[in-house]
Amino acid sequence: MNYQTSLKKVNKMMSNIENIGNVAAYIPELGNVNPNHFGVHLATIKNKQYAIGDSEISFSIQSIAKVLALTLAYNAKGGELWERVGVEPSGTPFNSLVQLEYEKGIPRNPFINAGAIVICDILISLFDNPKKELLDFIRNLAQNSNLNFDETIVKSEKSTGFRNAALINLMKDFGNIHNDIEDVLDFYFNLCSIKMTCNELANTFLFLANHGEHTITGEQILTKSRTKRMNAIMQTCGFYDEAGDFSYKVGLPGKSGVGGGIVAIHPKKYCIVVWSPRLNEKGNSYRGMNFLEWFTTETASSIF
Amino acid sequence: MNYQTSLKKVNKMMSNIENIGNVAAYIPELGNVNPNHFGVHLATIKNKQYAIGDSEISFSIQSIAKVLALTLAYNAKGGELWERVGVEPSGTPFNSLVQLEYEKGIPRNPFINAGAIVICDILISLFDNPKKELLDFIRNLAQNSNLNFDETIVKSEKSTGFRNAALINLMKDFGNIHNDIEDVLDFYFNLCSIKMTCNELANTFLFLANHGEHTITGEQILTKSRTKRMNAIMQTCGFYDEAGDFSYKVGLPGKSGVGGGIVAIHPKKYCIVVWSPRLNEKGNSYRGMNFLEWFTTETASSIF
Amino acid sequence: MNYQTSLKKVNKMMSNIENIGNVAAYIPELGNVNPNHFGVHLATIKNKQYAIGDSEISFSIQSIAKVLALTLAYNAKGGELWERVGVEPSGTPFNSLVQLEYEKGIPRNPFINAGAIVICDILISLFDNPKKELLDFIRNLAQNSNLNFDETIVKSEKSTGFRNAALINLMKDFGNIHNDIEDVLDFYFNLCSIKMTCNELANTFLFLANHGEHTITGEQILTKSRTKRMNAIMQTCGFYDEAGDFSYKVGLPGKSGVGGGIVAIHPKKYCIVVWSPRLNEKGNSYRGMNFLEWFTTETASSIF
Amino acid sequence: MNYQTSLKKVNKMMSNIENIGNVAAYIPELGNVNPNHFGVHLATIKNKQYAIGDSEISFSIQSIAKVLALTLAYNAKGGELWERVGVEPSGTPFNSLVQLEYEKGIPRNPFINAGAIVICDILISLFDNPKKELLDFIRNLAQNSNLNFDETIVKSEKSTGFRNAALINLMKDFGNIHNDIEDVLDFYFNLCSIKMTCNELANTFLFLANHGEHTITGEQILTKSRTKRMNAIMQTCGFYDEAGDFSYKVGLPGKSGVGGGIVAIHPKKYCIVVWSPRLNEKGNSYRGMNFLEWFTTETASSIF
Repeated sequence: MNYQTSLKKVNKMMSNIENIGNVAAYIPELGNVNPNHFGVHLATIKNKQYAIGDSEISFSIQSIAKVLALTLAYNAKGGELWERVGVEPSGTPFNSLVQLEYEKGIPRNPFINAGAIVICDILISLFDNPKKELLDFIRNLAQNSNLNFDETIVKSEKSTGFRNAALINLMKDFGNIHNDIEDVLDFYFNLCSIKMTCNELANTFLFLANHGEHTITGEQILTKSRTKRMNAIMQTCGFYDEAGDFSYKVGLPGKSGVGGGIVAIHPKKYCIVVWSPRLNEKGNSYRGMNFLEWFTTETASSIF
Repeated sequence: MNYQTSLKKVNKMMSNIENIGNVAAYIPELGNVNPNHFGVHLATIKNKQYAIGDSEISFSIQSIAKVLALTLAYNAKGGELWERVGVEPSGTPFNSLVQLEYEKGIPRNPFINAGAIVICDILISLFDNPKKELLDFIRNLAQNSNLNFDETIVKSEKSTGFRNAALINLMKDFGNIHNDIEDVLDFYFNLCSIKMTCNELANTFLFLANHGEHTITGEQILTKSRTKRMNAIMQTCGFYDEAGDFSYKVGLPGKSGVGGGIVAIHPKKYCIVVWSPRLNEKGNSYRGMNFLEWFTTETASSIF
Repeated sequence: MNYQTSLKKVNKMMSNIENIGNVAAYIPELGNVNPNHFGVHLATIKNKQYAIGDSEISFSIQSIAKVLALTLAYNAKGGELWERVGVEPSGTPFNSLVQLEYEKGIPRNPFINAGAIVICDILISLFDNPKKELLDFIRNLAQNSNLNFDETIVKSEKSTGFRNAALINLMKDFGNIHNDIEDVLDFYFNLCSIKMTCNELANTFLFLANHGEHTITGEQILTKSRTKRMNAIMQTCGFYDEAGDFSYKVGLPGKSGVGGGIVAIHPKKYCIVVWSPRLNEKGNSYRGMNFLEWFTTETASSIF
Repeated sequence: MNYQTSLKKVNKMMSNIENIGNVAAYIPELGNVNPNHFGVHLATIKNKQYAIGDSEISFSIQSIAKVLALTLAYNAKGGELWERVGVEPSGTPFNSLVQLEYEKGIPRNPFINAGAIVICDILISLFDNPKKELLDFIRNLAQNSNLNFDETIVKSEKSTGFRNAALINLMKDFGNIHNDIEDVLDFYFNLCSIKMTCNELANTFLFLANHGEHTITGEQILTKSRTKRMNAIMQTCGFYDEAGDFSYKVGLPGKSGVGGGIVAIHPKKYCIVVWSPRLNEKGNSYRGMNFLEWFTTETASSIF
């Protein structure tokens, strides 16, 4: 299929639609981004590449990186992971403490903040140098040895991260954090600080569309069975309390970030990344959601 | 693919595993069922039929019928539906009032009790004789003109249905029920009273695997696009607060009932129905969940 | 002490203050009341009477009557009552279902709607003719044999009482309602339909200031010890989620009604009733709260 | 009245009753206390002193100290305080985050942990040396210049204080903490580390029974009006989610601490302190609650 035609067609359709919502502004590194950036990159498992717009500009991938941390932890620990974090949609905002208190410090899933923090805690217990380990893992996926944490973003996140500090302290109180709080938060903020282009991101996540196998190196990043399960978790939990809506509208597993990026996976076909910084009220990219809905309709792409 | 071999193989594997959990017992019609019944029926979109065990014994399909009521309402009202009920997983038990109060009487999705009750209210507003309309619709799907509501079950449900009465009164208070409470509850309890065999159920739901088209009559039951969306809603909301777990383990959209039945859809391939009355603590069939997990692993069936 | 001077003085002070808030309007019988009515009556345990304003006009006492129902039930059942209803402040609005669901159908206290409904259920179990029993009890307290339920109000309440129907159905589901739902709601709506003047109300509640003894007949309505406990419950639970504020500002135990009435008790001294139909956002009389705060400050009346 | 006779009589009655519950054990300084200690001290506003048991042994007063911090802050800020903390009973455990999240970082009252932390934050903003200021204030009340913070307790509290760290971070996120988190927690843990005997404690709190005036120095510690309000807040909020029960059983305003101490105030009469380290399931002294209930019944002491 020639996806380029469809990308262009949908892009044209979207240009008639107002782009609304605000850019995340709790740290200057997000608040200062041009709200009108818009880029899309689609990579197929045959390594065909399609793109439009600002697909070569780096942006803060934020929570999208949680999928990569989970992949690393899942590889090492397997199903044991689920003793410390669930696989259920939370039905609440990404940073809520209410559910966490009722459920005794076990986060609903690894994609809400609390859950990703537990995954970071697990990685710290696993590796001597977890930051290096994570970076090597991502660089290998992206086939780009220059990818790095962004120290400026890390610093900003730390200075405003009171909600995350509340979450981790609550979990520590329940015994679900094993390492030092400062270390875990430092690792978590580094994880969320990575910047990538749509192009890089699409190729980094492509193994999830290719039953766990890297499409260039041929390396089995994750077993076939676990790859399916990763996609299933993204389907039910990838969009905070908008997961149902994304599933309903787009019909693909995916993950969003507060920087305005969305990754979506069509198993056995492609990985598509959309970037548009204006967010809807649930914290997901406004135009990104719309573009993907129309694109999957146009191309009749859906797992359902 | 010859699914019969796989059904048998998985059945053998399961026979070594203890079947635990209790049968739903809040009404005698459910409590008196032999807890050791076990049946499976798989129907492909080419109308091939495979079965094992008690697949020709009728059981109370209960909440599984909510999918059929939603199909009827969705056909008539389209996206307008979502002003009165959401498409988000609830993250709470099927009969919780907490979320409903916080969210001003708008149920999270059409498969929790509150949501299905709203769908019933909508059908009552739509049709002069909603019970007949629903029955005709289901009989046509099942190609069985003998299907009927079970008056004994309806009566039992009514005599113990205080929780559902609480839900509907709360929604009425918020203005989200337009018809008389007694009428809506009567229709709702009739909806949940239907009995079918695994065989009938699999063929009734088969249109959802066949882009909305009935595999025998060729009738377009639901548009292609809406069929996808129905499957997406089942994926994220079909199993109450175990939706994530079902998605993770089975990797197919589906819907369970407290009678121990589970329907799962493999789009473009098949519909499979499992029946085993013992329930796990979330109210879903214990053996049914396990069987489907192993079966989809064995046959490498998954949408992810 | 000559309370008349203080009543007049505070009344004058209040006339400079705007009277804000809206009259309860969910039934016409409340909505049609002149919002500017204002009456106060104070009766001492020596049977001295002081009044200003519209103290001889009847108004719907609504939830204030819950104290009388509780007195009747407490007399008959003693501490056994507290197995079915608590004595803790709820910290939530008067008609919330959330807490009731978390706490398995046991209402926090007898003055929130759910708790008063349980008390009604208990009275129905106790008496052959509970309405007559209640009426006789109140008529005797008020020394007025003409007091009656208001059928028009009962009818209006029933036609809009979906929230209360939700509460009672939820409690029935948890096993905390023993009688027929219709009967209990009928009795509850009758209880809340009583109309009295400030004068009548102050003298009806005077026994609570007089260690349980009726100041005219000398009859011991409630034991000395139970009278203290009744006052204690009013102190902590009499004003829904404004109980702390009333305690802080007024410093007396009391009970409010959505008709704009407030009863307050100064143990060993007096009972004061204020009536002003405009309600603050918590559902308590706006001017009534203010008047009592100033009056208890002016007269240095406080139990603290 | 000769309270000594009553103290002895009630003590005798209690000796027939099993003393149950566990000592708080989250820090060794509490866990290592002899669980069978029992002391009572009553001081009247005429400075008469009555005591039984271990009334001269120092114990950790813990949350009881929150009343003293509030007094200091209330004196300095008056009603302005209530913009940052409420005066309503919480209806939830002392360290819950749920309500705090729903209510945007404004704690329900100054006696739950979150509220006391806000008071500490206010004191830090007010004073150059808040610890010295607080200590001078308490030493003056107790007429004992040797009272001090207990560094061992402070250290233990800090090493286990994850829940409190969660609370303060959540409030900081909502903008209701103005100073550095570490500084506020340090001050809060110092506040809770004070040790006193029943005797010292009763005389320290006696001004609250004496319309705000110190019974020895004659100093007006708090205005008459604010003293009433302090007692009112203790009445509705002094015992976490057991405030209603304490009010119902004891009928006096009071405050408990997790070290097993309880202070109760009879306005215009006396202050009584009970100490018994075994706690009931709500975290209040088991024997202390019982003793006070029987003592106020025996002496017909009650504000109601």
